[in-house]
Amino acid sequence: MAVMALLAVGCQNTPTPTNDSAQVVMNAILQRKSVRSYTSDTIATDVMENLLRAAMAAPSGRNIQPWSFVVLTDKNQYGDIFGNNFNLPMFEAAAKVVVICADTSVLLPPRENPNAEPIRQSNGTWRDDMGAVTENLLLAAEAHGLGACWTACYPYADRMEPVKKALGLPATVVPYSIIPIGHPAGTEQPKDKWDTSRIHYNHW
Amino acid sequence: MAVMALLAVGCQNTPTPTNDSAQVVMNAILQRKSVRSYTSDTIATDVMENLLRAAMAAPSGRNIQPWSFVVLTDKNQYGDIFGNNFNLPMFEAAAKVVVICADTSVLLPPRENPNAEPIRQSNGTWRDDMGAVTENLLLAAEAHGLGACWTACYPYADRMEPVKKALGLPATVVPYSIIPIGHPAGTEQPKDKWDTSRIHYNHW
Repeated sequence: MAVMALLAVGCQNTPTPTNDSAQVVMNAILQRKSVRSYTSDTIATDVMENLLRAAMAAPSGRNIQPWSFVVLTDKNQYGDIFGNNFNLPMFEAAAKVVVICADTSVLLPPRENPNAEPIRQSNGTWRDDMGAVTENLLLAAEAHGLGACWTACYPYADRMEPVKKALGLPATVVPYSIIPIGHPAGTEQPKDKWDTSRIHYNHW
Repeated sequence: MAVMALLAVGCQNTPTPTNDSAQVVMNAILQRKSVRSYTSDTIATDVMENLLRAAMAAPSGRNIQPWSFVVLTDKNQYGDIFGNNFNLPMFEAAAKVVVICADTSVLLPPRENPNAEPIRQSNGTWRDDMGAVTENLLLAAEAHGLGACWTACYPYADRMEPVKKALGLPATVVPYSIIPIGHPAGTEQPKDKWDTSRIHYNHW
């Protein structure tokens, strides 16, 4: 919509300012909100691919890319996966659900000696990476007119265990976050969290 | 630039598809890269504000908003802050540096009883939240034609201690990530990390 408005201006009047695309991206970031109610519309396959493409474009410490994704399409599984630890009706109403997983243990050279033989070790920044992965997916959903909700799974054992078992995750892989995605029923609005008291200059 | 190309198509030929803004956002996400070399150009005040606005639009567990930001403008401080633990020339070359901080301890009702009196407690998801905060800032930088680089500070004690001391951070506040930002010198390209083997359906 924002681009359509810009197009009209661009065609009729003056050159479009060079920062239009910045404004479109800012809109997606500022309009993203937790959406927990959805219409019954489905999500196109190429749109789902875009969401996963966005997630995999996240940065990661030492470029280790600790992520994997389990896309749920079989609602008969949901009782086993979500049990009593999640808002089950929200997931049942969503067109798709993505379980975003992290491998917590990776083959890497020791941090002190990048040229040495890789050893299996904890990846110290996987949790930070996964926050970025999740946010990228949420922003891509917003940009496509979809609604989604970051549902924490890690670090809560009571949530992780049934999910790990139901999905057959490998031992070193944890279910990090679970994202229901659908066309918003239209009730949720973004929060205005802008607060200049959170900004300091040069010193706290 | 992406919007300018769309504008040309929109004006000359067929109606622009309704998902142009989705493509603009996808471009920012897919084009984001770690930029470590910068020109000497400065960053406009309103652009810096946009970057911080984007960061503060991140989601957070229980909407606790654990973030604060220290914007560095005095390069005379950099020796004390970065010491030998960081790539000092990269930070010196950047037009601005933002230290993204997290308050690890917050006043909240107990998780089991949301109506009870708030108590000071660890915020269990601050690290996840801060990954999203950092990614939002990086994406906003990319969208404005700027380059930035996620530099981890937490969880490394040797990096955090000098920063905490130099910036006078409160006891419960940790320097999470440090982001140099500038106009890219043009050398870095995004990585293509799309890998369908990372996607599973219904089961690992």
